[in-house]
Amino acid sequence: MSDMLRDLSGDTALFSLNTATVRERWDLAEIIDGCVRHNISSITPWRDQVAKCGLGEAAIRIQDAGLAVTSLCRGGYFPAANAEGRQTAIDDNRRAIDEAATLGAACLVLVVGGLPDGTKDIEDARSQVFDGMSAIMEHARACQIPLAIEPLHPMYAADRACVNTMRQALDLCDELGEGIGIVADVYHIWWDPELADQIARAGNDNRLLVFHVCDWLVPTNHLFLDRGMMGDGIIELKKIRAMMETAGYRGSCEVEIFSADDWWKRDPDEVLRTCIERHQSVV
Amino acid sequence: MSDMLRDLSGDTALFSLNTATVRERWDLAEIIDGCVRHNISSITPWRDQVAKCGLGEAAIRIQDAGLAVTSLCRGGYFPAANAEGRQTAIDDNRRAIDEAATLGAACLVLVVGGLPDGTKDIEDARSQVFDGMSAIMEHARACQIPLAIEPLHPMYAADRACVNTMRQALDLCDELGEGIGIVADVYHIWWDPELADQIARAGNDNRLLVFHVCDWLVPTNHLFLDRGMMGDGIIELKKIRAMMETAGYRGSCEVEIFSADDWWKRDPDEVLRTCIERHQSVV
Repeated sequence: MSDMLRDLSGDTALFSLNTATVRERWDLAEIIDGCVRHNISSITPWRDQVAKCGLGEAAIRIQDAGLAVTSLCRGGYFPAANAEGRQTAIDDNRRAIDEAATLGAACLVLVVGGLPDGTKDIEDARSQVFDGMSAIMEHARACQIPLAIEPLHPMYAADRACVNTMRQALDLCDELGEGIGIVADVYHIWWDPELADQIARAGNDNRLLVFHVCDWLVPTNHLFLDRGMMGDGIIELKKIRAMMETAGYRGSCEVEIFSADDWWKRDPDEVLRTCIERHQSVV
Repeated sequence: MSDMLRDLSGDTALFSLNTATVRERWDLAEIIDGCVRHNISSITPWRDQVAKCGLGEAAIRIQDAGLAVTSLCRGGYFPAANAEGRQTAIDDNRRAIDEAATLGAACLVLVVGGLPDGTKDIEDARSQVFDGMSAIMEHARACQIPLAIEPLHPMYAADRACVNTMRQALDLCDELGEGIGIVADVYHIWWDPELADQIARAGNDNRLLVFHVCDWLVPTNHLFLDRGMMGDGIIELKKIRAMMETAGYRGSCEVEIFSADDWWKRDPDEVLRTCIERHQSVV
């Protein structure tokens, strides 16, 4: 039975599942079981799911299932309205690094945060991101957990991440030194006129840590929760994957789909089958 | 009566109304009358409104009202699935230039277009934009109508405009030469890490043709039709206006608000009063 499933699901060696993709109907234990059923070998869990399962329990279940942990989602959210809030964020990011180490994650993904409530100064928010990251770098290096900054689409600049292009993220990496790189998520970067150049630059500098795939739907009906399954939108997935591989990236394609009205409502086994099939056919 | 209204509405010397702001409840003739009532001295009409009114009739009404025409909205949409479609777009843009000349508009705004239906190659779409613009430059120069490329927010890259940053728009201007510049719309550019540098560059090169204001709401509930009134969102309007003026911009602040569920539903006289008041207090 296990061998038959292996045949059906095909080659998933370079496939990783970001657990957000099936989070609405499965908890972490169910997701891990699902990965085993579908012959998925790598996973990126989210911290809230890990916390609900229990960190130790999650680590054991993931190890017992033989899953590699591509990354842990996520730290970040550094800017805050006052010094206490900024310190709380730094402390939380240190815990996130510890959790990533416990889970054996290859890196910690950082969504850096946007404007603190009641503020408008994005340059100040960006300074706070730099300060917050500076404060956790030493701990990350000591734990041997690389930090992976995820530049988010500019439509999230106000409320999720004020790092919005690969160029900006890589400049930040250059300022911060070793032990840091980026998440290249096609959803956030596909439109960038500097896409090819900045992927090449990131590869040259050994900054390509994670590769996220999904698709951009036309029309897109919600700013956050209407991402598409690979192949259903307009992103040139094979072209961007080739850029990544030409730049030296050898990691997996991690599927991360936020889709409140479509994929999150479906049977998660169907979702996983579709992800694997599309990974093989269109990525 | 006219003098009293003048007093009430205050200084609108550097205020321009993009007619999209009140388009749902007023036609162009009513908008022109509204501008007179509210002591608004400059206007940017949309081509569909002008066509409905009749081009000659619109030109006369605008002139009789003593309104300056900041720009005409809009040409563009160059990419198409085949050569015939691209030629149709070029022909239409030549007509738009003629209409701008008839109306005495200071320039023609271009929203360049996105991916042709059924295609995904954004680099090819960008090449088509360059080709289309190259094909109309001579006519624009002959008519003395500067072309104003509006880089649109990256969330519109697929379906409205594949020119998405000021850097990219200014690079395109450099390739095309004289008689072309940009629209700096705060909604599209506020997030850009290169905001200050690119506004300064545009000023140095005499490329700052139009300045659009509105606001970015948090949360934003629709990708296209949920723009905010100045002051209701998180854009640092005074800071960006100062960048524009430091860079040498001496034109007006043009209010352009697409707001299907809020401002478009209100009494247009209330909308105009609010626009003028916010222009004075927060821009």
